[in-house]
Amino acid sequence: MNSKLIAPSVLAADFANLQRDIEMVNESDADWFHIDIMDGVFVPNISFGMPVLEAISKHAKKTIDVHLMIVDPDRYIKTFANLGSNILTVHYEACTHLHRTLQAIKAEGMKAGVALNPHTNINVLEDTINDIDLVCIMSVNPGFGGQSFIENTYSKVKQLKELITRKNASTRIEIDGGVTNKNAKALVDAGADVLVAGSYVFKSTNQLETIKDLKLIANS
Amino acid sequence: MNSKLIAPSVLAADFANLQRDIEMVNESDADWFHIDIMDGVFVPNISFGMPVLEAISKHAKKTIDVHLMIVDPDRYIKTFANLGSNILTVHYEACTHLHRTLQAIKAEGMKAGVALNPHTNINVLEDTINDIDLVCIMSVNPGFGGQSFIENTYSKVKQLKELITRKNASTRIEIDGGVTNKNAKALVDAGADVLVAGSYVFKSTNQLETIKDLKLIANS
Amino acid sequence: MNSKLIAPSVLAADFANLQRDIEMVNESDADWFHIDIMDGVFVPNISFGMPVLEAISKHAKKTIDVHLMIVDPDRYIKTFANLGSNILTVHYEACTHLHRTLQAIKAEGMKAGVALNPHTNINVLEDTINDIDLVCIMSVNPGFGGQSFIENTYSKVKQLKELITRKNASTRIEIDGGVTNKNAKALVDAGADVLVAGSYVFKSTNQLETIKDLKLIANS
Amino acid sequence: MNSKLIAPSVLAADFANLQRDIEMVNESDADWFHIDIMDGVFVPNISFGMPVLEAISKHAKKTIDVHLMIVDPDRYIKTFANLGSNILTVHYEACTHLHRTLQAIKAEGMKAGVALNPHTNINVLEDTINDIDLVCIMSVNPGFGGQSFIENTYSKVKQLKELITRKNASTRIEIDGGVTNKNAKALVDAGADVLVAGSYVFKSTNQLETIKDLKLIANS
Amino acid sequence: MNSKLIAPSVLAADFANLQRDIEMVNESDADWFHIDIMDGVFVPNISFGMPVLEAISKHAKKTIDVHLMIVDPDRYIKTFANLGSNILTVHYEACTHLHRTLQAIKAEGMKAGVALNPHTNINVLEDTINDIDLVCIMSVNPGFGGQSFIENTYSKVKQLKELITRKNASTRIEIDGGVTNKNAKALVDAGADVLVAGSYVFKSTNQLETIKDLKLIANS
Amino acid sequence: MNSKLIAPSVLAADFANLQRDIEMVNESDADWFHIDIMDGVFVPNISFGMPVLEAISKHAKKTIDVHLMIVDPDRYIKTFANLGSNILTVHYEACTHLHRTLQAIKAEGMKAGVALNPHTNINVLEDTINDIDLVCIMSVNPGFGGQSFIENTYSKVKQLKELITRKNASTRIEIDGGVTNKNAKALVDAGADVLVAGSYVFKSTNQLETIKDLKLIANS
Repeated sequence: MNSKLIAPSVLAADFANLQRDIEMVNESDADWFHIDIMDGVFVPNISFGMPVLEAISKHAKKTIDVHLMIVDPDRYIKTFANLGSNILTVHYEACTHLHRTLQAIKAEGMKAGVALNPHTNINVLEDTINDIDLVCIMSVNPGFGGQSFIENTYSKVKQLKELITRKNASTRIEIDGGVTNKNAKALVDAGADVLVAGSYVFKSTNQLETIKDLKLIANS
Repeated sequence: MNSKLIAPSVLAADFANLQRDIEMVNESDADWFHIDIMDGVFVPNISFGMPVLEAISKHAKKTIDVHLMIVDPDRYIKTFANLGSNILTVHYEACTHLHRTLQAIKAEGMKAGVALNPHTNINVLEDTINDIDLVCIMSVNPGFGGQSFIENTYSKVKQLKELITRKNASTRIEIDGGVTNKNAKALVDAGADVLVAGSYVFKSTNQLETIKDLKLIANS
Repeated sequence: MNSKLIAPSVLAADFANLQRDIEMVNESDADWFHIDIMDGVFVPNISFGMPVLEAISKHAKKTIDVHLMIVDPDRYIKTFANLGSNILTVHYEACTHLHRTLQAIKAEGMKAGVALNPHTNINVLEDTINDIDLVCIMSVNPGFGGQSFIENTYSKVKQLKELITRKNASTRIEIDGGVTNKNAKALVDAGADVLVAGSYVFKSTNQLETIKDLKLIANS
Repeated sequence: MNSKLIAPSVLAADFANLQRDIEMVNESDADWFHIDIMDGVFVPNISFGMPVLEAISKHAKKTIDVHLMIVDPDRYIKTFANLGSNILTVHYEACTHLHRTLQAIKAEGMKAGVALNPHTNINVLEDTINDIDLVCIMSVNPGFGGQSFIENTYSKVKQLKELITRKNASTRIEIDGGVTNKNAKALVDAGADVLVAGSYVFKSTNQLETIKDLKLIANS
Repeated sequence: MNSKLIAPSVLAADFANLQRDIEMVNESDADWFHIDIMDGVFVPNISFGMPVLEAISKHAKKTIDVHLMIVDPDRYIKTFANLGSNILTVHYEACTHLHRTLQAIKAEGMKAGVALNPHTNINVLEDTINDIDLVCIMSVNPGFGGQSFIENTYSKVKQLKELITRKNASTRIEIDGGVTNKNAKALVDAGADVLVAGSYVFKSTNQLETIKDLKLIANS
Repeated sequence: MNSKLIAPSVLAADFANLQRDIEMVNESDADWFHIDIMDGVFVPNISFGMPVLEAISKHAKKTIDVHLMIVDPDRYIKTFANLGSNILTVHYEACTHLHRTLQAIKAEGMKAGVALNPHTNINVLEDTINDIDLVCIMSVNPGFGGQSFIENTYSKVKQLKELITRKNASTRIEIDGGVTNKNAKALVDAGADVLVAGSYVFKSTNQLETIKDLKLIANS
């Protein structure tokens, strides 16, 4: 059974031909579209936002997993729901009222996620883990594609898995950054449920095969 | 002689197929690509940023006219130069040190523009007009495509033209928002040099004809 | 005919017995309730906000004229409409997109006002005066009641009146701060339409007489 | 012996008749006045501030327990001391220099409190618990009255009690949000010392009885 | 009569030996010490602050003219008064409540100044010129010493002089940035009263002679 | 062997004669220069910045240990590297992307430090300790010299030592604030490696002896 999921990150796709790349993902063994929204204030890069997501939604036939790397995400929760987001993930470091933000996301009918920067410890989720559908562990610093995987990630995944088990939560663990066929198995073994892959997929010569391979490894 | 320029705004293009739409503009009578970068903080919308511009630059064969609707634009001047911007326009309302910002843009080899929100009076440019290559008069509120043209724009264009003439400056006047074949002639008559057109071009049934027509009207 | 209006400022009322003071205003010759909302960020004082306005609205039988001394007022336009505001005034110094803010206020069915700090020149309204129902000229620095009237106000009122006339606008001029029976006539003569009075009314021994007197002077 | 305290929240009182409601509390079995100051920036609501607190202080005959839901509270510590606050509570999430803020509150002769948002873990107080007179555990998200109690609160109270005991601190535990006769006993059993009650008290038909009842339950 | 003043800017002095450089100024024909306080937020440089000014004040025997290039200067008005500032100049671009700030500076017994960035037009001072003791026209962008003089400065000095005359104000005009013996006469002829000189004085081989010479030129 | 280091803080030196005080440190038994950069925004004081550090670097012959008490330190990492900093320490409370900031400091060839405010718990470094060369534990609140030592510091040093040992990291522990010959031994015994001393050294009658004595105690 293939319970481990693959989420290609559109950040690494060809922005001149998104329809083509989205249709490739539609036809692939991938499970989700991972969508990185960056505002140039929370992170030092502006990726893309609402009009691009609208174009993606029109063609995408799989779960749309939106990762907001923006300040004060509460302002745009309704907007992202209207644009077709199925999962909306906010950064712990950007939320003064995280519990309220999570409830607001769910009230719009989306799954609620929390992303943690590489330096942020799992223990900050102690009081909200039962309200979180997805924790996105950043395994590189958010802002750019193509960075190297941070090894400390394994330890974070294990701690998070332990927290989820201890609290009897049903939260999924997503890994974002530097995922390849080299570390996919170890990440899954540590507890990961969803693997985001950007450059590794879109810069490969055979994208469908790369996804298929990653999916097999993750579920082996 | 066609001295009045048309700058289709990519914000209204099909983000699922940008290469196609860019090539249409390449082949059209249009002069510039108008690129609206929005960060969701200066304006209540996130449009697109660096990776999308990079994809556009790869295919665009005309002047790239980048309009930054972002806070603290000084942070990204070098980045936008590296991405192929030929003109970089910042908002008056976002610049505490406008004179420095203009010099920094020129130091990177780009033309320097200043955009004014609908409520901002022309007289704020009294001391910098000789340092400005392009003034972008917002004829709608920045943030979204498809809004209605603000009639007060004509009066602003005339005031700006008067300032440019009085100061013996060589600044170009660009109009951004709600431009159509209905107001193009009047805008040019008032003093406009560059007309940005978004939805009017990209939502039309024959985009090449719409551009051609607009160009003819502007230069009639 | 009494075309000049008196707007007692609730900021100077007895907050322990607002119903009593509101009913006094209901029965008086006053025309509007002036409501000063301060957030402690735009101005160095927190006055009161939504729940207090809700209580006021329940008893007030005259026009509710809300003056927002808060940062980023766009966040709360709908909220203040729902609380019964008839006029919503924002500060020029707090609005990056003033034209949009004015349209948003009107879209909620309220009259739209703009307040100017003592140092802000009238000429900043050159491009929006036809969109403004009310200009509130601060004749003291916003933040506290009981301050002395700034004499430069007369000159600002005259400039504003000239602008309104020149642009053929139907904007009303409101004066806020240090208004008494000593300067009311001169303010009206300079062009003022609405006089806000706080301490002068509520700290007087006969509030109804004070209001009646001020109204008579303003309309003499 | 009645060691457990009841603190009615004035946020739920009738702002048109505060003197009446304050006198009710004076005559009741309640122990403290809980005063919620919100600035519309730290929380998405503006409640009331200095002039309203001044009016409350004039009539209140019990401990005034001020809860600041504002950004950068250091700016107003002296002001709140001058207005008669006996306890001044700041939010952990609003204080970059929490240790300094606590000392500054005490230097003005007030008790120093720290409030924690629902998602904030108790362990952030590990290094300051001995400097804190009161911890206010938010059992709803701060900003509005009348919300439902968050069940995770019990676990936070227990952890906090354990921390206080382990560090031999004399800190009191206050619960703010959704407290009723249904959960009061369980909260006290978990370790709570002070129960804030807003709507539950002020929207009840017999306020004095409701307070008396809550006090009895808390001390049973 | 030497009515035109010279104010050497300590920013260009040798920070390893300030006492020596201050004593040089004490003995020179210079009139004021110009002190540039930069916070790295309003301008992209941190120069020096309170402890360095305290050391300067101990040795300086002439007027201390402090130029704050910092955000929200109201926070530190009392502090700078206590450190011996005789004149305190704030930036127009940093003051939301400029009128209040000017009154607060005077209330501490200091002269009140306003600095204008190169792009800021003189007309923003229309309503406050009678409250201002000193206008500092930035003739380079604030933040660094050693920049080239902006030629548009002459036109700003003339406009400011005209405003001062028209309003019958007694404001002094100070020029800050790129002043040398080449432009001193022309600046004074345009209306300048005080010339700030940094690198030009401190990087010269004979500092006393350079100051003497500049003073003579300014008063010729 | 003298493995414990002494770092006199230049903040307490005589800013009128820094060369003299720096040369004293050069000749003393001290090991590092501790340089406190404060911006008046992160902390309520502006100390000094780039031009003063440049003057210090010219004379200093020992390790330059720069402690940034500023917001958003990423903006100035390159600048401080160019000014001769050997160690660059940022505040945990000022870094949204701490992991990235540490890598950026190292990429410029400097050692990377993290400072913790008195209220910030050691456990926030759980995921970055192996990337940190120096942890600076604030034993007073940052912003001013001459404050009293906070006793809770010993407990933090022990926790940090335990974390370093458990993670097999090679991080040094620095103590900043209120260090004297009275607490030096106890701090070292708890695990401290570097003792910052400001007023205690520079306000002493024999600075060289005070440093020598402190060094001996620390290494006894």
